[in-house]
Amino acid sequence: MTSSETVDLAAMSGLEVLRTAMTMADRPPFIGDLLGIELDEIEHGKVVFGLTTRPEFANPLGTTHGGICATLLDSVMGCSVHTTLEAGVGYTTLELKVNYIRAVPTNGRRLTATGTTIHVGRTTATAEGRVVDDQGRLVAHGTTTCAIFR
Amino acid sequence: MTSSETVDLAAMSGLEVLRTAMTMADRPPFIGDLLGIELDEIEHGKVVFGLTTRPEFANPLGTTHGGICATLLDSVMGCSVHTTLEAGVGYTTLELKVNYIRAVPTNGRRLTATGTTIHVGRTTATAEGRVVDDQGRLVAHGTTTCAIFR
Amino acid sequence: MTSSETVDLAAMSGLEVLRTAMTMADRPPFIGDLLGIELDEIEHGKVVFGLTTRPEFANPLGTTHGGICATLLDSVMGCSVHTTLEAGVGYTTLELKVNYIRAVPTNGRRLTATGTTIHVGRTTATAEGRVVDDQGRLVAHGTTTCAIFR
Amino acid sequence: MTSSETVDLAAMSGLEVLRTAMTMADRPPFIGDLLGIELDEIEHGKVVFGLTTRPEFANPLGTTHGGICATLLDSVMGCSVHTTLEAGVGYTTLELKVNYIRAVPTNGRRLTATGTTIHVGRTTATAEGRVVDDQGRLVAHGTTTCAIFR
Repeated sequence: MTSSETVDLAAMSGLEVLRTAMTMADRPPFIGDLLGIELDEIEHGKVVFGLTTRPEFANPLGTTHGGICATLLDSVMGCSVHTTLEAGVGYTTLELKVNYIRAVPTNGRRLTATGTTIHVGRTTATAEGRVVDDQGRLVAHGTTTCAIFR
Repeated sequence: MTSSETVDLAAMSGLEVLRTAMTMADRPPFIGDLLGIELDEIEHGKVVFGLTTRPEFANPLGTTHGGICATLLDSVMGCSVHTTLEAGVGYTTLELKVNYIRAVPTNGRRLTATGTTIHVGRTTATAEGRVVDDQGRLVAHGTTTCAIFR
Repeated sequence: MTSSETVDLAAMSGLEVLRTAMTMADRPPFIGDLLGIELDEIEHGKVVFGLTTRPEFANPLGTTHGGICATLLDSVMGCSVHTTLEAGVGYTTLELKVNYIRAVPTNGRRLTATGTTIHVGRTTATAEGRVVDDQGRLVAHGTTTCAIFR
Repeated sequence: MTSSETVDLAAMSGLEVLRTAMTMADRPPFIGDLLGIELDEIEHGKVVFGLTTRPEFANPLGTTHGGICATLLDSVMGCSVHTTLEAGVGYTTLELKVNYIRAVPTNGRRLTATGTTIHVGRTTATAEGRVVDDQGRLVAHGTTTCAIFR
């Protein structure tokens, strides 16, 4: 385990920052803790995160709220861009589009989200993402546009 | 306060369902409880929800995760469509697009989201939404497409 | 009428460039000529363009191809951003989303598209647009994200 | 060559309709004629169309107007859905999103657009598309949502 006191995030590439965050013992609070997001895989241009649905993820119709898949997709698509950036280069998400394919029950279904870069340029990047359930069925997919600050 | 045992949601219009849900004492768990969503206003074709940012809403960059505004926008835009539907008519969100305009700190900022229908047809509907911070500055905006089941 | 030889577009604001282009006698070829686009109104943060549908705008189903409304919306939304830029500032469209509400016959229907800026920042801008037919009915609507080069 | 008088489009699957349209001698006017769209490949769930840029495709900045790629992407993504539909089943495009990656000169560049279905359900379908230039570089990409009428 790594302590946040012993690492210099500013000197790390995006890939190193994200891999360090995966194993950091005392990282600051993060929406991933609130939702139970697990970081399954982080490589150059591709990340895989997952979570398990819970009753408190429900929308008023009783199925998993669309915000859960939107949060997963925003995370994996943004992080896939982040993995491609050198040390000192920042980014922010400009827009996100999500298509919802299949409703997900809130009773403990494992969702797995994969984000992959499509294009990383000098000042902007795009990425796509997909969410599948524990039977491998497509639940949602999306695309995003990020701004890059060099 | 209304008890969920004494109401027949299936006989209610969408507007009645949502207004009842606002005041129901023993409603089932809901993502709104997890995130602290408050239902400020519900009328025909327009709803206003809010929440206050918390440290556990952070993204890895330390600002409010884009999933929070996506969840708010999905909620207010979907519910704005729901308010226009008669009893027995259902809907689902097909897609959602969010533009992010301004980063939001996680230290207790009140975000207010307004969703408004653009078009409600026989089988599909569209709506738009905006999120502003406690100084009235635009934080995010979006559009959605819903399918309607009559 | 203005001749393109007597104007210095680089010294003009975006609003001046577009107003000059409206009345320029010998401007270079432009997709607006191919599609019959008319520039109805150009002001700071808002532009209105129109065109009349023709049989050669048909999709394989026999109605006006979605590309026509996409082209109109891309034009009015991008130009609405352009009207807000000072001389020497450029922009490009990063992404475009269009919702289609109503099919349009190809037999000479006048479509009117209005683009309005939502947010113009230092490095990015967003805008929205709507297309109505000659009876004022909503045909399509959209949003866009632009990058600004200062 | 096939004559439109000798075919019964209503009895054909979507794939047959599109393949017939490719070779029909006297088909009605079509936006593909206006823009010079060539139908390169049509199979189940995937279509490839192309065109060559011309000076009259210019936007006011002098590069190919975003509407050209939007038209190509709307065509290939919608038609990829159409190829999966049985005889008598119709569809319409609900929404379209396009990301623009690279500006394209108007001096005769060949653009090739590929549309592929992501999900085809009972009442809705989604597809994605990419446009590359004659050097294989990504120019634009997009996604779409269609309604299906069974």
